Amino acid sequence: MIQRPRTRLYVDADLSAGAEVPLEAGRAHYLRSVLRMEPGARVLAFNGRDGEWLAEVAHLTKSGGSLTALERVREQTTEAGPWLLFAPLKAGRTESVVEKAVELGVSRLQPVYTKRSDVTRVNLDRLTANAVEAAEQCERLGVPDVNDGLPLFKALEGWDPRRTLFLAAESGGAGDAVMAVTARKGQPAAWLVGPEGGFDSGELDGLRHLPFVVPVGLGPRILRADTAAFAALALWQALAGDWTGAGGVSRPPFRTEA
Amino acid sequence: MIQRPRTRLYVDADLSAGAEVPLEAGRAHYLRSVLRMEPGARVLAFNGRDGEWLAEVAHLTKSGGSLTALERVREQTTEAGPWLLFAPLKAGRTESVVEKAVELGVSRLQPVYTKRSDVTRVNLDRLTANAVEAAEQCERLGVPDVNDGLPLFKALEGWDPRRTLFLAAESGGAGDAVMAVTARKGQPAAWLVGPEGGFDSGELDGLRHLPFVVPVGLGPRILRADTAAFAALALWQALAGDWTGAGGVSRPPFRTEA
Repeated sequence: MIQRPRTRLYVDADLSAGAEVPLEAGRAHYLRSVLRMEPGARVLAFNGRDGEWLAEVAHLTKSGGSLTALERVREQTTEAGPWLLFAPLKAGRTESVVEKAVELGVSRLQPVYTKRSDVTRVNLDRLTANAVEAAEQCERLGVPDVNDGLPLFKALEGWDPRRTLFLAAESGGAGDAVMAVTARKGQPAAWLVGPEGGFDSGELDGLRHLPFVVPVGLGPRILRADTAAFAALALWQALAGDWTGAGGVSRPPFRTEA
Repeated sequence: MIQRPRTRLYVDADLSAGAEVPLEAGRAHYLRSVLRMEPGARVLAFNGRDGEWLAEVAHLTKSGGSLTALERVREQTTEAGPWLLFAPLKAGRTESVVEKAVELGVSRLQPVYTKRSDVTRVNLDRLTANAVEAAEQCERLGVPDVNDGLPLFKALEGWDPRRTLFLAAESGGAGDAVMAVTARKGQPAAWLVGPEGGFDSGELDGLRHLPFVVPVGLGPRILRADTAAFAALALWQALAGDWTGAGGVSRPPFRTEA
């Protein structure tokens, strides 16, 4: 059994046996100065296309570095999780939504601006960095698309009607989440979670008239927006996603270093 | 339709028509100096026993204040959610676990110390305050029990074997979460979520030998401990808890103030 390196890196370069994988300065600095790695140290690398590779550090300097890919340890799989459309939140809550959405297997993150959004812009570089870090940590083989923020209905223009948009609805009259998700198992899906203040009535009317929108309730308590996102995604994965075993990503055949 | 006051307060006192409800200094200060309330202002009050009451501010001074309970607007219901046993986490993540666990309807929070816990004490007053604030915000009618931290196996001494302890398991060999939860619908339940580093092998062996422990998997990705707690509780509520409509808390018959 091979020792599983603890450090996983998302890289741009193609991965194949013997391939050189450039590291930009920030990455090289992190390996060298924070993790105290030297040439020969083992890491794992993935790029969303070629599976997961065992790699070793070739060189590290102040201005950059490189890895050498050694051996594929996991085959690439399709990560066909749902999309998450969410109104960006205050303080650290947006970062937390990104982190957990990546762990819960979303394939696309789309911030949307709504009437009652307190936050009217997002830092795309920062959200992308959050997504990369979460993907590295949770053992995904790819990083979801992270889109720049859009006004809610702009984000829905040209929507493929085959992709159900589950609306995490606060108020009554919404369908049962378990039934709604189970009934659409195997179909493309997305979740829409509003801001802390909820959608305004005009937005709700507009959403409910879209043929691909399915409002579902998430229980009798009022969930914060971030909680609603976590709950919705967990529910979807458990009932319609890759938690069911079939088609799941198998765990790597080695243990974590102590 | 009555305007629904935005401010909900968890109180100790009994609630009945005309009852005086004392407010301690911190609460009175918050209503007076932060929310700028004056006598006659309307709030909602609940104590976990008498349902939810419309109340009005009777007086507010620097040293305290009181409410007068006016009218019951929701009947008390039993909040029979699962217990959550969790290894306390770093930084704000423990507070976040408490907040979301309350929103997701737990009836008891039990911090447990494990071999790989980075955090070896909790601030019980602070966790309790987090739980109260979350209960006020999410429209619960009670606040879950918040216990002081205990070593893991100490917390399991005298465990009622009729209460299933679902173990959020990282590694393979665990059962399907949906099947395990659905099969035990209607029975008392608890979830156990370990620290970021996972349980050690001795702990896992010990847990797996307990007849009430049911290890379940939460998908192919490695979830952070807080994500695992949110996912587990959401799943349980959706499949075995009060999201199913039957026995759910009905929403109050008035709208939120703009």
